[in-house]
Amino acid sequence: MEIKLVRKVLEAHEALAGEIRADLAKRRIYSVNVMSSPGAGKTTLLERTLASLAGELRAGVIEGDITTTRDADRIARHDIPVVQVNTEPFGGDCHVGANFVKTALGELPLEELDLIIIENVGNLVCPAEFDLGEDDKVVVFSITEGEDKPLKYPLMFRESSACVVNKLDLAPHLDVDLAALRANIEQVNPKLAVFELSAKTGRGLSAWLDWLRARVSAKRG
Amino acid sequence: MEIKLVRKVLEAHEALAGEIRADLAKRRIYSVNVMSSPGAGKTTLLERTLASLAGELRAGVIEGDITTTRDADRIARHDIPVVQVNTEPFGGDCHVGANFVKTALGELPLEELDLIIIENVGNLVCPAEFDLGEDDKVVVFSITEGEDKPLKYPLMFRESSACVVNKLDLAPHLDVDLAALRANIEQVNPKLAVFELSAKTGRGLSAWLDWLRARVSAKRG
Repeated sequence: MEIKLVRKVLEAHEALAGEIRADLAKRRIYSVNVMSSPGAGKTTLLERTLASLAGELRAGVIEGDITTTRDADRIARHDIPVVQVNTEPFGGDCHVGANFVKTALGELPLEELDLIIIENVGNLVCPAEFDLGEDDKVVVFSITEGEDKPLKYPLMFRESSACVVNKLDLAPHLDVDLAALRANIEQVNPKLAVFELSAKTGRGLSAWLDWLRARVSAKRG
Repeated sequence: MEIKLVRKVLEAHEALAGEIRADLAKRRIYSVNVMSSPGAGKTTLLERTLASLAGELRAGVIEGDITTTRDADRIARHDIPVVQVNTEPFGGDCHVGANFVKTALGELPLEELDLIIIENVGNLVCPAEFDLGEDDKVVVFSITEGEDKPLKYPLMFRESSACVVNKLDLAPHLDVDLAALRANIEQVNPKLAVFELSAKTGRGLSAWLDWLRARVSAKRG
């Protein structure tokens, strides 16, 4: 009985993710699910990325948080269409689910978009387990978290297509071993595209932007 | 049917937490469940705390991680009895459950202990939802995560008795607004005991140690 119930819920979620994937494929909109621990710099990376791509790619953002609209407020300042999803009314879910994405897509001007960025709830564990119908998962990792974390939280690094190693500006003030961090990321997922940058200063951003541009172009066909 | 199933699982977990609580009460051992985002400095805080209390309080440690024994290895170097719990064989659980604690307690020399520290999986969301039979929950928060996080992840701050605000040594290199952080913590839980410190340098540690000593003494009676 227990197994049947869990299977039913997961199948419903996968069906919804499939619908999202099919709808965005038809529209040729590229979508990326950005995940990290709390405070690794997802929103700052988004702000910097959106400002850099303004006038070039038309982006929409889905902001996932347990509560508050703080991140959506930050994105809206850039004149980007943004939908805030709060999971708190649904038990404070620790991740964005396909149901939230489906609802949020109904609020975005899809005819006008090339790119949708989903900013997930800050959590290095659970969000990696859920298919949102997105083209890519990206993990943002702050070097303040320590070089051992890819080994300790491997699923998120395995499920992602790219890893943004953020807060490089703090490197001189930390004991973190960046070579060991690179080796640990490589050990967990040798196919991961890795971008070392500082979303705060903008240093190292261009390689990340090029990767994103290429993914959007490939989807457009 | 769904509600019944969820209730059954939760009731079994609560019953187990109750058994742990009763057993540790009988033995007059104080227990604390230490939680945070990945890389906020829980293990470094534990190492510093255990070194400071050596010869004064007899501590045992339960290390919860999805995978690896890295944290247990760090603690074992201090000649402290430590049990590593890996949640990966059980689906990579994003938190320590009462079942893990129950098993781990069987591996610790309880007759010789005043204090048990449970280091939870790095996750600012899910661990707050589970009663482990512990006396206190403590949230460790790194100032690198930003002053808005207590508002965005309120449950962990509400459920905790104390908050260790860590990595104070990095304050000069960050844009973080510490006064706003204090106000946000206070807004979410005005009863929280807050300790601002650097586990790395040891600055500010004594107030935290005094709080811990007082909790252990109260339990001993």
